[in-house]
Amino acid sequence: LETIVTKTGGKRSLIGGERPLTVIGEKINPTGKRRLSEELLAGDFSTVREYAIAQAEAGADILDVNVGVPGIQEERVLPQAVKVIMDAVDLPISIDSANPRAIEAALKVYQGRPIVNSVTGEEKSLEILLPMVKEHDAVLIALTYDEEGPSNDPHKRLAVAQKILERAGELGIGEEDVIVDCLVRPVGVDRDAARLTLETLRLIKQKLGVNTVLGISNVSFGLPDRIWLNSVFLAMAIARGLNCAITDPTAPGIKKTLLAAELLLGHDEFATKWIQYYRKGNVR
Amino acid sequence: LETIVTKTGGKRSLIGGERPLTVIGEKINPTGKRRLSEELLAGDFSTVREYAIAQAEAGADILDVNVGVPGIQEERVLPQAVKVIMDAVDLPISIDSANPRAIEAALKVYQGRPIVNSVTGEEKSLEILLPMVKEHDAVLIALTYDEEGPSNDPHKRLAVAQKILERAGELGIGEEDVIVDCLVRPVGVDRDAARLTLETLRLIKQKLGVNTVLGISNVSFGLPDRIWLNSVFLAMAIARGLNCAITDPTAPGIKKTLLAAELLLGHDEFATKWIQYYRKGNVR
Repeated sequence: LETIVTKTGGKRSLIGGERPLTVIGEKINPTGKRRLSEELLAGDFSTVREYAIAQAEAGADILDVNVGVPGIQEERVLPQAVKVIMDAVDLPISIDSANPRAIEAALKVYQGRPIVNSVTGEEKSLEILLPMVKEHDAVLIALTYDEEGPSNDPHKRLAVAQKILERAGELGIGEEDVIVDCLVRPVGVDRDAARLTLETLRLIKQKLGVNTVLGISNVSFGLPDRIWLNSVFLAMAIARGLNCAITDPTAPGIKKTLLAAELLLGHDEFATKWIQYYRKGNVR
Repeated sequence: LETIVTKTGGKRSLIGGERPLTVIGEKINPTGKRRLSEELLAGDFSTVREYAIAQAEAGADILDVNVGVPGIQEERVLPQAVKVIMDAVDLPISIDSANPRAIEAALKVYQGRPIVNSVTGEEKSLEILLPMVKEHDAVLIALTYDEEGPSNDPHKRLAVAQKILERAGELGIGEEDVIVDCLVRPVGVDRDAARLTLETLRLIKQKLGVNTVLGISNVSFGLPDRIWLNSVFLAMAIARGLNCAITDPTAPGIKKTLLAAELLLGHDEFATKWIQYYRKGNVR
């Protein structure tokens, strides 16, 4: 299955098939970032712009945009952020919000075919967001949890993915336009968290064959040396057939892991990109 | 399947089942190491001893021993090295040589149940080494190439593994005592090398269900920043179900990847080992 996301007049990102991993840049997200939070509350988009450019230069294929600061008027700020990013770089966008009205406002200003991040298996999410995704011809990330919360049983996560796919199908949204998020939880909280995510990934690839995504950094929440853990988890997920990663390509460890995986899976002939990155002085 | 290797009076290493990866320390090998080569030619085992201790401290489960310097009298030096390692540490040994007489001499002095690294699918290897492995009740690494050399076709590598298993079986060597080496070749020489190895690994796990091993570092031969490439390849192989890795646990990047993989696969509750390693100042 091939998923297509676009920016009008800019980049067209293809996901899936025999392609290497698609990188969705995660940095435009105020969680844990004080400066960005304050700027967003003040209507200042300079860091948003800076992060957009830095991630594009580091090789992101798509940019995630989330402005979820407590107390913010997301319906107003999210579309503004989307416009700033559209001006700054030529990459497609993943509109990331828990607020359906903010998503709708962002869909209205976006030019091209974006990702809506995310639709869950909760009834209210399906009822409100799926028609919106259909109307704007967007792609959706299907987050595998529902009213019962995130399950530790990979088969239950699979069942939620199936439900979202079915409901999307009823509205005429094809399987190629649904990217399943297998759900990453912190391994510091539950020692089986990462193993269960990798098992869910295997199941979903095998049973549904749809494209998949993981928000990598959540796995290391609360632990030291997060980039290394994230890198190893990313490599393991790529080996299991992951199609998209929401991650930070401006972190050298992540960038090197992405380049190494590309090389090891046969997408970097003569190791040209690997050697080039090394020569630029990006040595550990 | 569970493979058991032992050192009499020392450690008993179990391979396979639901266990985390078994680490076979690779450092006692003169390839590319001038000082170790010169010492071995002069009958000096101080670096052998030093590497044995360092790898044991870094968490190796088994130590590979190879003394293959051009011009050396392997039949004499290999058993000497084995004795030195038996004295220095309490770990089982993997006897690594292309010279059957040297392997036999080492088997005669070794106390416990070692690994013979390796038996290939070549007729002369099968005829000479399998009876030796049987006589000394050793475990063997089955290297998946034969008279035709290493094949780029994972199905041919699988066929060689099957041949070695059958021939071993005829002598009463059980499947649990055969660890299949899926063959790692440099990705800098052939861009598909690592991908084919990972595909071979998947096939062999699926079709034969036996324990598997990879000599990780070969993948990065000739390329810059080898430890990073090796780490990513190691993580990918672990995600595909690899049971043993021949690698260097004294390299901090490798050690961290091993610890991260252990944590991510649910073998490090409360991230105790990960946090401990970090606190010791082993930060990137």
